[in-house]
Amino acid sequence: MFKVPEHQVAGHQAINGLLGPLVDDSGRFYKPLQGDERGATEMAFYTSFSAHKTIPQHVRRFFPAFHGTQSIEASDGSGLHPHLILEDLTSTRLHPCVMDIKIGSRTWYPEASQAYIEKCLKKDVESSSPFLGFRISGLQVYGNDKESSEVVLKPERKLLQNLTADEVRLVLKRFVSSNPKSDQPDCSFAAVVYGGSNGILAQLLELKAWFEDQTIYHFNSCSVLMLYEKEKTKMVNGGEESLGCAAVKLIDFAHVTEGNGVIDHNFLGGLCSLIKFISEILTGPDENSPKSCLQDGAAE
Amino acid sequence: MFKVPEHQVAGHQAINGLLGPLVDDSGRFYKPLQGDERGATEMAFYTSFSAHKTIPQHVRRFFPAFHGTQSIEASDGSGLHPHLILEDLTSTRLHPCVMDIKIGSRTWYPEASQAYIEKCLKKDVESSSPFLGFRISGLQVYGNDKESSEVVLKPERKLLQNLTADEVRLVLKRFVSSNPKSDQPDCSFAAVVYGGSNGILAQLLELKAWFEDQTIYHFNSCSVLMLYEKEKTKMVNGGEESLGCAAVKLIDFAHVTEGNGVIDHNFLGGLCSLIKFISEILTGPDENSPKSCLQDGAAE
Repeated sequence: MFKVPEHQVAGHQAINGLLGPLVDDSGRFYKPLQGDERGATEMAFYTSFSAHKTIPQHVRRFFPAFHGTQSIEASDGSGLHPHLILEDLTSTRLHPCVMDIKIGSRTWYPEASQAYIEKCLKKDVESSSPFLGFRISGLQVYGNDKESSEVVLKPERKLLQNLTADEVRLVLKRFVSSNPKSDQPDCSFAAVVYGGSNGILAQLLELKAWFEDQTIYHFNSCSVLMLYEKEKTKMVNGGEESLGCAAVKLIDFAHVTEGNGVIDHNFLGGLCSLIKFISEILTGPDENSPKSCLQDGAAE
Repeated sequence: MFKVPEHQVAGHQAINGLLGPLVDDSGRFYKPLQGDERGATEMAFYTSFSAHKTIPQHVRRFFPAFHGTQSIEASDGSGLHPHLILEDLTSTRLHPCVMDIKIGSRTWYPEASQAYIEKCLKKDVESSSPFLGFRISGLQVYGNDKESSEVVLKPERKLLQNLTADEVRLVLKRFVSSNPKSDQPDCSFAAVVYGGSNGILAQLLELKAWFEDQTIYHFNSCSVLMLYEKEKTKMVNGGEESLGCAAVKLIDFAHVTEGNGVIDHNFLGGLCSLIKFISEILTGPDENSPKSCLQDGAAE
C-alpha cells in the first residue's frame, strides 16, 4: 500500500533502508515525525495553521493539506512510527517538473540552541544563501517528445550546494526549457510556467504580499516547491491537465517559530530575491549590465 | 570653522579627543576616511553612486550629497586627515528629532574576512537584528512648548542594544509623541510624521520599491535616518519650515558591496519589517493579537 515517493527532489528519502516519507494511492504523503523537537514543531505548526482563522483561503492553497497523524510501518523497517498525513502534492501529476528552493539567507533563528545555530551557520556560509537569499536544494526536469516520460535533468545535491548568481539563473532557465541539459537553454516554457496570470511569478507575488503583512509565523528553513507539467497530459486521477499547471507550494515546517508581531523578513527577503531572478527570465535580462561598479570609479 | 555635529545620535563622535565627523557653517559634514578598507569602500561607493546614470532622482534624494574629499585638521588632534565632504543633513533644521536605525538582520556579508564575520555575528546575535531585521542605534527627541529647545529623550546606546519587538514599538511611538518619556506615549505627531503622502512611511515605501529592483549595491550595515521637526520653526538658513518636514536618509556606506545582479534581500527584508512596525502605529495595532500560536494548539 505504501511506496516511496517518485518525485521527491530533496530531503530525507526512504531508500537504502533509511527513514523517509511514503505515499499511498489515495493522494496522501506520510512524513515520519522526527523524534526530537523538529517533529513536535512541525506537528504544532500544521495543527496551528489548520485552526488559524485569520489565514485567508488564497494563502492556504500554498500549503499541503493536513490530515492528522497515523502510526505506520516505517520505511527503515524499525516498526510502527508516527507519521504526519499530508497531501501528496504530485499525486495528480504524471510527469511533474519540480524544484525545491530553501528560502532565506539564514536557516538558523535566535531561539535555536547554540549548537544548532553553529551547525546552520556553517552550512549557510558554504551555500549560496547569504548572498542570494535562497538556495536550490533539488530539481527534476522531464524531457520532451520521445523523452517526455523520462527525467532528463536531476542534478546531485552536491552540484547545487554553492551556486553563483549566474549558475542559479542558468538552472532556473533550464527548468523551463525544452533543452534542459544545454548551456544555452531556450526557455520555451518560461512564458507559460513562470508568466501569466496564474503562473509561478504571479503566485510568488501573492505569497510575497502575505509575507509583507503576516506576523504569526517565521518560516525558518522552509522550502518553496515549484511544479509544472511540460505536456498536456491525462491526470492520474482522471480528467485532463492543461500544459503548465504551474503551482507554488511551501513545505518543511520543522523549524517554524512564532512571529510575535514581527514579519518574517528573512523569508520575505529571500522570496523577493527569487522573484527578481524569475522576473528577469521573463523580461530578458540586460546581458550588458555592469559587472563591477565599485572598482576604479567605473560606473556606467 | 569646524565644529562637532550637534545632532549626531550614533556612530563615532568627535568628542574626548577621539576621531569623529565635523561640520562647518555652510552645511557640510566632514567624515574622517577610515584608514583601512572601510574608508576605501565608502569613498568608492560615493564616487560610484554619484556617477551612476541609472539611479533615479527620486532615489538620490535619500542619500547625502557628496562633494569629494578634503584633508582637514582631525578632531583627535592628530593633524591633517582626509575627510569625505558630505551634506550635513541637519544643517537646515533647528530642533530635529532624529532616529538612526541599522537595517538588516545581519551586518556581515559573504565577501568579508573571517575575523570580521565573526565579530559581526557576535554583535548581531546579541542585538535585536536577527529577530527584527533591524536595530535602533540611537535617537533624540525634543520636548514641546517650554521644552521645545531641549532634547528630552536621548537614550544611551547600551539601553537600545537588545530591544524586544514591544520595546521597539514603544521607542517608535515615543519618537512621535508629545510625551516622549512616558510609557503611554500619545503618538500625537504620528499622523503628520509617519503618515501622509510625504511622510516617513511613504518615503520608506518608495525606498522599498527601489530595493525590490536594484541589484547594483548591497548596503551591508547601513542605517536609515529618520528626521522631523516638532514645531513650525524658522529654518537656520532663512525661510520657514513647516511642522513635520519628515525625511528619510540612508547613511554609512563603509561596508557596501557589489550586488552583482542580486537584490539586497538583507536590507529589503529589514526595511519591510520596519515598515510594518510604522504602519501599525498609524493604523493602531491589535492589542489583542495572540501572544502564542504554536503552543497547546491554541490558535484563535
